[in-house]
Amino acid sequence: MVRIALDAMGGDLGPEAAVEGALQALRSAPGPMAVVLTGDEPTLQALIEAKGGSELPVKVVPTTQVVDMSDTPTVALKQKPDSSLVVSVGLQKKGLVDASVSPGNTGAMMAASLMILGRAGKISRPTVATVLPTATNKFVMVDSGANVDEKPLQLVQFAHCGAVYSRLVRGVESPRVALLNMGEEESKGSEVVAETHQLLKASGLNFVGNVEGNDLPKGGFDVLVTPGYTGNVVLKLYEGMGEFMYRSFAQHLQGPQWKDFFQTWSYENEAGGLLLGLDGTSVIMHGRSNPKAYVSGLNVAWRMASQGVHKRIAEAVDVQEPTA
Amino acid sequence: MVRIALDAMGGDLGPEAAVEGALQALRSAPGPMAVVLTGDEPTLQALIEAKGGSELPVKVVPTTQVVDMSDTPTVALKQKPDSSLVVSVGLQKKGLVDASVSPGNTGAMMAASLMILGRAGKISRPTVATVLPTATNKFVMVDSGANVDEKPLQLVQFAHCGAVYSRLVRGVESPRVALLNMGEEESKGSEVVAETHQLLKASGLNFVGNVEGNDLPKGGFDVLVTPGYTGNVVLKLYEGMGEFMYRSFAQHLQGPQWKDFFQTWSYENEAGGLLLGLDGTSVIMHGRSNPKAYVSGLNVAWRMASQGVHKRIAEAVDVQEPTA
Repeated sequence: MVRIALDAMGGDLGPEAAVEGALQALRSAPGPMAVVLTGDEPTLQALIEAKGGSELPVKVVPTTQVVDMSDTPTVALKQKPDSSLVVSVGLQKKGLVDASVSPGNTGAMMAASLMILGRAGKISRPTVATVLPTATNKFVMVDSGANVDEKPLQLVQFAHCGAVYSRLVRGVESPRVALLNMGEEESKGSEVVAETHQLLKASGLNFVGNVEGNDLPKGGFDVLVTPGYTGNVVLKLYEGMGEFMYRSFAQHLQGPQWKDFFQTWSYENEAGGLLLGLDGTSVIMHGRSNPKAYVSGLNVAWRMASQGVHKRIAEAVDVQEPTA
Repeated sequence: MVRIALDAMGGDLGPEAAVEGALQALRSAPGPMAVVLTGDEPTLQALIEAKGGSELPVKVVPTTQVVDMSDTPTVALKQKPDSSLVVSVGLQKKGLVDASVSPGNTGAMMAASLMILGRAGKISRPTVATVLPTATNKFVMVDSGANVDEKPLQLVQFAHCGAVYSRLVRGVESPRVALLNMGEEESKGSEVVAETHQLLKASGLNFVGNVEGNDLPKGGFDVLVTPGYTGNVVLKLYEGMGEFMYRSFAQHLQGPQWKDFFQTWSYENEAGGLLLGLDGTSVIMHGRSNPKAYVSGLNVAWRMASQGVHKRIAEAVDVQEPTA
């Protein structure tokens, strides 16, 4: 049984979408799953009953505060300890749940998860991973914007995080790890990126070398390593291009295959951000998550927790030198 | 009269595309233009005659070497001094032409231009600018991958370069300068990017703040400032997305408006890379340039030289402190 705490108050669509998603997830769960909703108890209980969820393994842990999208991580942690977001992580620390999921403030969820759960093994910094589409496969990008000014050894740890996730959650046997760079040659890129290339070669990972921006839509690799500043630009440019394609083409191209196409290239398709390198399981969903997105987020958290992704990451980086 | 040296041997489509493009450019020039082709004299003279260009202001300066796409900048400069690329820049240094254009090896053209022409005024490093489309306007991105590990003051100089180009070549009266970042807040981003934000605020430029990756397809700014590593990723992701859209949609969407659409989003649409911050005028075209692309490259070089872009850039950065 995997028990997942879901912050039911943090999403833009409010608690109804969260409860609807949680009940759908429980009805179609890939294995034994229980959900603990954190938030306003009367509201959530009423929604569970109204949606016929009383018989499902879902319960409510009442909280009195909500982290807003504009709250800084410090405000969330110091001034909102009884928020649905912070409590969803705290329950995991207490051993009452196995995973925490929030559709809210990314910075606050990252900070709360890091402060409360701590880091996995020798991990220097946790990373936010996202899953992006290509014409042929999907890849896991680390880092997607949780970090800046990373050192090469930290980027190599991110690569390990992405490879473990790719293998255990996405079912890729020997994930191909690529380094985002500005040319094919080993020596290309900033000092940090060029040094990371050398470290990845010696990492024991299935390192397939550099890829460039124009390679991304083609695919052919499973994990993409890049500093957080650039990863964030890539993630958001993908989102922007997905929206742009939808606006430009969707009205002219009807039919189920095009619906699938635009769905694949929509930023709403995937769970959001996977926090990797923590001593626990933490998933950040898009603020605008609808019930389907909640199902996706809960299923990803279920797979991460049931596979013990955070423990496998700790083992993978254990052989590395500790980073500064 | 603006005299432009064109490396007629460096393009993937060979000298015929170069000569055809040069003659078309001369026949439709925006003002007085003369072209000096560098390359194999018999080949080029025969092409000029065959294409009816004998009466046009075009002549040939014979060269005996060609820089390959795989040559390092050092090889190009040291071992190929009589190459069509190096000579096209050397003619400018000698005062025999006003601008140099090559469809060849980007690194070699950058190195040759920097070594032979030198830098404009207090410019610390030259930058490669590219012009990218959005749904509403086009913007000039600096840096597009000529540099790595830039300092904040160097990024501000790039912003000045992009603003002068935008104003004098693209006709934007007061170019809106944006900083590519991972959030709207001033303090976001890597240390270098966050410091650049503060310097841009005080630069006298029309700085409109941070933009994120998802803002790029929407537009609303004229100059985008970003370190070369990230700029190169953005440029190539744009190219890759343009190709991806073409492959996914073009066969399903016929008609002139769609032809225009895909043309706008094709990497072949613009001249390629504008070298800004040099003491002269230098344009790098795509290796795969066709005659239409040569026309575009020559016209851009004509505008840059006739407006004295390099001198205006020197003036713009003259008020800055010199960078380390």
